[in-house]
Amino acid sequence: MQARGRFITFEGTEGVGKSTQLENAANTLKKLGIEFIITREPGGTPMAETIRELLLALREEPVHETTELLLMFAARAQHLHNRILPALDQGKWVLCDRFTDATFAYQGGGRGVSKERIALLEALVQGDVRPDHVILLDAPVETGMARARKRGELDRFEQEAQAFFQRIRDAYLERATAMPSRYHVVNAALPLEQVSASVAALLAALAKMPAPA
Amino acid sequence: MQARGRFITFEGTEGVGKSTQLENAANTLKKLGIEFIITREPGGTPMAETIRELLLALREEPVHETTELLLMFAARAQHLHNRILPALDQGKWVLCDRFTDATFAYQGGGRGVSKERIALLEALVQGDVRPDHVILLDAPVETGMARARKRGELDRFEQEAQAFFQRIRDAYLERATAMPSRYHVVNAALPLEQVSASVAALLAALAKMPAPA
Ligand SMILES: Nc1ncnc2c1ncn2[C@@H]1O[C@H](COP(=O)(O)OP(=O)(O)OP(=O)(O)O)[C@@H](O)[C@H]1O
Ligand SMILES: Nc1ncnc2c1ncn2[C@@H]1O[C@H](COP(=O)(O)OP(=O)(O)OP(=O)(O)O)[C@@H](O)[C@H]1O
Ligand SMILES: [Mg+2]
Ligand SMILES: [Mg+2]
Repeated sequence: MQARGRFITFEGTEGVGKSTQLENAANTLKKLGIEFIITREPGGTPMAETIRELLLALREEPVHETTELLLMFAARAQHLHNRILPALDQGKWVLCDRFTDATFAYQGGGRGVSKERIALLEALVQGDVRPDHVILLDAPVETGMARARKRGELDRFEQEAQAFFQRIRDAYLERATAMPSRYHVVNAALPLEQVSASVAALLAALAKMPAPA
Repeated sequence: MQARGRFITFEGTEGVGKSTQLENAANTLKKLGIEFIITREPGGTPMAETIRELLLALREEPVHETTELLLMFAARAQHLHNRILPALDQGKWVLCDRFTDATFAYQGGGRGVSKERIALLEALVQGDVRPDHVILLDAPVETGMARARKRGELDRFEQEAQAFFQRIRDAYLERATAMPSRYHVVNAALPLEQVSASVAALLAALAKMPAPA
């Protein structure tokens, strides 16, 4: 029987280097001869990408916190069942730009949505599926914001205040402390070559570990 | 203090006469001098209407049952908080074309989604808000289908088989039996004038009852 692939997510605040490190991870896995897919949240399937657009659009109508939460998990259900789980079943690794840990950090830590509400939807949508490994790219909020600002216009989430992103960073770090075997914290404030080397080394180590059940 | 308005929903299988009776109800309330709004689910606000389009669109990608359920409740959260509750607070009656009872009937009875999953989302989105009265327009499935077919093209839901709609009708009737004080079953197979007279009489009776707490 084909061994199940690894489900690895990249997390962190805006502009910290997630997309950059996903590319670096892809190169690393190629060198290791590991089959993989790269995907992102919210999104990852045509329908989920449509839901993403709906979520990120600037609009006059205020978006209720529960609406935002349910749309996020609707996209996630579609992504998980139509893309992530099939790839893992084929033995492929899945590298994903954000996942449910981001919901706990952004909606939970950032917007103050109760963790119980998020955990309830996590269970409803995912059953007991969780990422095998979360690579948390951690850096001071201002570092990521400065990097992101260089890339142009800010979307709805990026227009939020600095304090909001500080709460998000804190929520990520709190989760990393609570789940040390699943979370790998990488210092993303370091120069790019050093961050990339850390991530590559981490993936090489994971590749040597036995496959998840 | 302004008395809270009544929250009244119209339910039933395809083409049974919900839109027709909403119009009739509007005329009745006008004659009674009652302020009201008319709205529909999924939809009722610009953002919720966008979610509705997403739900009803024919697409190649299979829509996971959980995705459908979460999108439905995302639209509902938006509709409830931005439109229904503000109107009720202003003392207006809210006449709504379908609501959560439709989710129990369509996704629950029709598609076999567990009632517990639906009830969980109902509690998450609505807290303890429920329609004050559900007007269930009940008729044999074939009666409604024949009426709907006259109006032109069938959407994704309407393309489902007859057996599907039979399960939906059964689920509605089961809920009506379980909650007799909230559900008012109207025989919608009768000629239009008779159905309209029943609905008008029902609303006149409700208007004489004391306002909900
Ligand atoms: N370690 C680093 N040092 C300096 N610059 C970096 C580093 N990592 C990434 N960058 C640069 O910072 C910018 C943001 O990086 P990237 O787009 O990968 O962040 P991100 O976390 O994906 O952002 P977003 O949250 O907006 O998706 C890019 O221009 C990238 O080249
Ligand atoms: N009691 C009735 N007898 C005969 N025809 C009726 C009756 N009530 C409604 N109709 C007609 O049946 C058709 C469907 O009615 P209507 O659009 O009100 O149903 P609906 O329940 O809103 O349908 P849908 O579920 O598709 O929204 C319309 O053409 C309407 O004029
Ligand atoms: Mg990115
Ligand atoms: Mg109608």
